[in-house]
Amino acid sequence: MTTEEPHPALALDDTVHQRVRLGILTILSETQECRFATLRDELGLTDGNLNRHLRVLEEAQLLQVTKGYEGRRPVTWLKLTRRGREALRRELAALEELVRRLRAVNGGETVTPAT
Amino acid sequence: MTTEEPHPALALDDTVHQRVRLGILTILSETQECRFATLRDELGLTDGNLNRHLRVLEEAQLLQVTKGYEGRRPVTWLKLTRRGREALRRELAALEELVRRLRAVNGGETVTPAT
Repeated sequence: MTTEEPHPALALDDTVHQRVRLGILTILSETQECRFATLRDELGLTDGNLNRHLRVLEEAQLLQVTKGYEGRRPVTWLKLTRRGREALRRELAALEELVRRLRAVNGGETVTPAT
Repeated sequence: MTTEEPHPALALDDTVHQRVRLGILTILSETQECRFATLRDELGLTDGNLNRHLRVLEEAQLLQVTKGYEGRRPVTWLKLTRRGREALRRELAALEELVRRLRAVNGGETVTPAT
């Protein structure tokens, strides 16, 4: 019944693939460190929603949370761990495989042409 | 605080993006119609788990469920709707944008080289 190769969707990890968490990890991969407030605003989230997803990622050891101060204001900094960077790289490989497969079917009709 | 362009993760729709459902939609986009059992086996799911995700997709009118018989055996067929095909195309565009952004950072280190 199954094909020889496992379907690329099986290579996706929910911890990383989930929409908001993928956004968080993508943003963190582009910077050394990122403020909680910046992340929240860039992704259009509430504090509670962002906190919930950060907890999942922290428990999976994909990111590191540092609390400190700027002047008297408490600031939370977030940073990808090495494990987080690797997890994101695996997700990227799985997404590329999926995109390739989808593009083969929906090829000429995508909104963004491959360059 | 926010950048000029909305983050590509914001363009992802959870109904379509969720790991299992993205697998279901990808497989359906490759065939005219697909049997429940084939889908279940290709994605390594239980009947209950597949049913749960099919219900979400059916409620969003992204796929059509047809029940019938082959000989005396009841068979369930699944098929993408036009809306489903469009939703998948939007997801593909969003994923391509995300992959492009991730590749710009993690460029030389991806497992699957771009050809």
